[in-house]
Amino acid sequence: MANAISGGLTLDDVSPGQRFTSASHRIDANQIKVFAKEFDPQPFHLDEEEAKDTFFGGLAASGWHVAAITMKLLVGDAAPFEGGLIGAGGEISWPKPTRPGDVLTVTSEVLDVTPSRSRADRGMVTMRSETRNQRGEVAQVLTARLVVPRRVEVQV
Amino acid sequence: MANAISGGLTLDDVSPGQRFTSASHRIDANQIKVFAKEFDPQPFHLDEEEAKDTFFGGLAASGWHVAAITMKLLVGDAAPFEGGLIGAGGEISWPKPTRPGDVLTVTSEVLDVTPSRSRADRGMVTMRSETRNQRGEVAQVLTARLVVPRRVEVQV
Repeated sequence: MANAISGGLTLDDVSPGQRFTSASHRIDANQIKVFAKEFDPQPFHLDEEEAKDTFFGGLAASGWHVAAITMKLLVGDAAPFEGGLIGAGGEISWPKPTRPGDVLTVTSEVLDVTPSRSRADRGMVTMRSETRNQRGEVAQVLTARLVVPRRVEVQV
Repeated sequence: MANAISGGLTLDDVSPGQRFTSASHRIDANQIKVFAKEFDPQPFHLDEEEAKDTFFGGLAASGWHVAAITMKLLVGDAAPFEGGLIGAGGEISWPKPTRPGDVLTVTSEVLDVTPSRSRADRGMVTMRSETRNQRGEVAQVLTARLVVPRRVEVQV
C-alpha cells in the first residue's frame, strides 16, 4: 500500500530512458470472474465453457482488469513519483489475452519529460509500461501521461 | 448482464456517426475506496481526509475505476456488437475527476469502420465514448478500436 506520496521522484529527478520494474501479480480464474461480473460481464470473461466458442477461445481477463492490475503493480513501488501516480491519460493496447494462472510483471520506461508552460510547480512525464506474462509475452502496453510535481526550492 | 453475443450488430450494420447512449451508474465513496484498495491504493482514492492535501483536493475515483464503470455501461446495452465488446486498444483521458455521488453516463459515436484486409470475417470499429457526470462534465474520453465480426452470409 505504501506509495511515495512525499519523498518521491520529482520532475527534476527523472529523465528519458529511466526504467522501473514492478513486483508480480498472479491472476487466477476467480479474480477474472469477480472483476468481470462487476465491470465486464461478457461470456469470455465469466465462464470457461461459454468462452470456448468466442473470439478468445477460452477464459480471458478483461482488458480493464489487466489495466487495473498494472496500476496496482505501478503504485506498489515501480514508479515512485512525488505526489503519487496521477495519469492524465494515455494510449493502451492488449496484444495478447491474459489467461488464468498468468503471472504479470510491469516494466516501465520514461519516454519524455516536459515542464508545464503555465504551471511552474509541475510537468508531464510520458511513461511506457509493458505488462508481460511469465512467457515474456506482452499482454498490455500503456503509454501514459503522468502529472509530476517539480522539486520545491526552499525560499530563504 | 445480457450482452448481444449473438444477434448483435455486425461490421456491416454500423457506420460512422452512429450513436449509442448507456444507462447510468452512481458511484459512491465506498465503491471508490473498495476499488482503490485492490487496484490503486493511493491516499486521494482511499481517504477523504488524506485526499485534501493532494493534487485532487478531495476523494476522487481511480481513472481505471471510471474506465471499468464505463465498460460496464457499454456492455450493458450501449454498444450491442455481435460477438461482444472486444477492445484491441485505444486512447483514454480523464479531463475531470470523478467524485463520490457522481452519476456517470456514456455516450458513444462510431468514428470509423474498417474491414480487415487479411480476415474476411471481421473488421475494426473505432468508437469514441464520452463518460459524463450529472453536471454534463466529461470525466473520461475513450477512443477504442473494437474487433467486430462481419455478417455471415449463409451459403446455399
